[in-house]
Amino acid sequence: MAATFTQPHAHGRLFSTSPVAKPTRKLRSPFTVRMSLQENGPSVAVVGVTGAVGQEFLSVLTDRDFPYRSIKMLASKRSAGKQMTFEGRNYTVEELTADSFDGVDIALFSAGGSISKQFGPAAVEKGTIVVDNSSAFRMVDGVPLVIPEVNPQAMQGIKVGMGKGALIANPNCSTIICLMAATPLHQRAKVLRMVVSTYQAASGAGAAAMEELELQTREVLEGKPPTCNIFSQQYAFNLFSHNAPVQPNGYNEEEMKLVKETRKIWSDLDVKVTATCIRVPVMRAHAESVNLQFEKPLDEDTAREILKNAPGVVVIDDRASNHFPTPLEVSNKDDVAVGRIRQDLSQEGNHGLDIFVCGDQIRKGAALNAIQIAEMLL
Amino acid sequence: MAATFTQPHAHGRLFSTSPVAKPTRKLRSPFTVRMSLQENGPSVAVVGVTGAVGQEFLSVLTDRDFPYRSIKMLASKRSAGKQMTFEGRNYTVEELTADSFDGVDIALFSAGGSISKQFGPAAVEKGTIVVDNSSAFRMVDGVPLVIPEVNPQAMQGIKVGMGKGALIANPNCSTIICLMAATPLHQRAKVLRMVVSTYQAASGAGAAAMEELELQTREVLEGKPPTCNIFSQQYAFNLFSHNAPVQPNGYNEEEMKLVKETRKIWSDLDVKVTATCIRVPVMRAHAESVNLQFEKPLDEDTAREILKNAPGVVVIDDRASNHFPTPLEVSNKDDVAVGRIRQDLSQEGNHGLDIFVCGDQIRKGAALNAIQIAEMLL
Repeated sequence: MAATFTQPHAHGRLFSTSPVAKPTRKLRSPFTVRMSLQENGPSVAVVGVTGAVGQEFLSVLTDRDFPYRSIKMLASKRSAGKQMTFEGRNYTVEELTADSFDGVDIALFSAGGSISKQFGPAAVEKGTIVVDNSSAFRMVDGVPLVIPEVNPQAMQGIKVGMGKGALIANPNCSTIICLMAATPLHQRAKVLRMVVSTYQAASGAGAAAMEELELQTREVLEGKPPTCNIFSQQYAFNLFSHNAPVQPNGYNEEEMKLVKETRKIWSDLDVKVTATCIRVPVMRAHAESVNLQFEKPLDEDTAREILKNAPGVVVIDDRASNHFPTPLEVSNKDDVAVGRIRQDLSQEGNHGLDIFVCGDQIRKGAALNAIQIAEMLL
Repeated sequence: MAATFTQPHAHGRLFSTSPVAKPTRKLRSPFTVRMSLQENGPSVAVVGVTGAVGQEFLSVLTDRDFPYRSIKMLASKRSAGKQMTFEGRNYTVEELTADSFDGVDIALFSAGGSISKQFGPAAVEKGTIVVDNSSAFRMVDGVPLVIPEVNPQAMQGIKVGMGKGALIANPNCSTIICLMAATPLHQRAKVLRMVVSTYQAASGAGAAAMEELELQTREVLEGKPPTCNIFSQQYAFNLFSHNAPVQPNGYNEEEMKLVKETRKIWSDLDVKVTATCIRVPVMRAHAESVNLQFEKPLDEDTAREILKNAPGVVVIDDRASNHFPTPLEVSNKDDVAVGRIRQDLSQEGNHGLDIFVCGDQIRKGAALNAIQIAEMLL
């Protein structure tokens, strides 16, 4: 619970002219920079470095003083050759190829599922440990699906320096944010059923989607027709069912990730989950309304205490001033915020709770979680 | 199911420079105007005529050719004296006083609960039938709480011309929109429990809130701090727990309306309801994610057929093209749209369904419902 949450309107601005705004960096002395670049650290590759999550990987590496011997900036052919600066050094973005992973200890992938499928196994063969942010391998047997605060034991035995490559999957952003709050309660009272409705930000669809939301908003305010390239319909001042393909059972793939990933992460094939995933015109943090049904009774005061002591979770639950988590308040923050903690009136005997959760989709929902995994590999 | 829903991005503009945009009026011949002004029609008063719902009352009266002998435009002292035109005639806004209701058959109130409490009973004493859009009398025993498609029987015997005043309450917008879709399913399979998460538009907090959302959005896009007068925090590109006061049980008043009003409208004190109400940066239509648990099994195909045949409901449920209801698509429309109709994976034996509902908050959520009630009084 490191973060101090400030009132969102004190921020002044929601995002800089570029919507892929960086979090405010800690002031860093030259000494600190040398700390990150360490001869006995791992060699790292960032795959998809020009994307929203790729950029956030770099921010988080810096913020957490992640030690590394060297770092490779990898992206598609289109971005290859671009110059970038990271921690005071200049880098050229290299084209991702099968040879990119020679001598790489840890590769952080966030370039979409097809890139992960194409290059992930090749990297593992070269002895690289791949932390993959895509959905390509999440449900594959034997691939750990890890939220470090929740199921670190799933990646037991995987370490840099063992001379063996491995695949580790980062869960979907909605799953991470939901389970950060639900797991501590599950550990106490066992969740039998969970009904989730999401309020998902533009960032989940990448930097281009964030730019489209900003562009459309300007257009609509000027009375112009909105540009719809990334999404098939107007996003500004609107919301819609998540754009992931809908399966024959009527759930879209985003919803099924919440259903299936929860079972895998909790090692509980019996937990019942239903989800409705909705995109809202918010920039970079997701919110989720979560209704929980427990095997054992759990009163709201106990739940609040459990959540206050949960790692990576901050409780914002001020009923008197109507101050609860908002996407803006958690943007660029590491912790997942939870509030609206209350006994569910529709369930008897304290067997139900309603909670409202917000988390930065790019940070804990993607980059931070992946780098926390990478830290456990050292 | 009169409305034809078009793709939202075909609309081009979301709202005119004034966000309190009027729906596109039907072209009306002078003859039609004479049709509405009828000597044997009731005398009508609109209380709160300068507000968002008050203005929509007028639109709906015109759109539905509501017959009236005379119409009084009533508002607070601040707005008294303003000139306005309605159906080709000029009116002066009059200050609302205890004498305003002399000779008035039907008064449509939408000026907040305290105004309703102050003037509603006085109007009833003068023989006026008050259709009240506030929450002042909704839960009062003996006051019918009516959605005409759902429980018209609740106002049986109340008619203009019986020489007796009466109070009839319009339910809260979220309740109306939810129950328009849930009731036809309830009638078939009996809802035991309902878990609702809302995505509520600015309009629910009035015209000034819509203006604040627009203003804030411009400010944030220009890098300025957002003006927070109506809400205590940034609304543009953000969302937050509904601003209604939070009760000791942790639910806010908006949520408790859904719980209590559902029980009254369905005459079912046992139905279990929980709700989480959230404001999203959308202009004038609400969305709701509704999870239903039924006493009897109900498969999704049957549910879809039931909803297709339900009055005032339109089904938008195209999985192949990922086309489902959106707030923008139902804005200025009469019908409530329902989609994402699917068997709930977390309940066994077809005892559960998930649905997603959108409805215009000002129209069916307020003005239209009130005027449908008024029509039944004639």
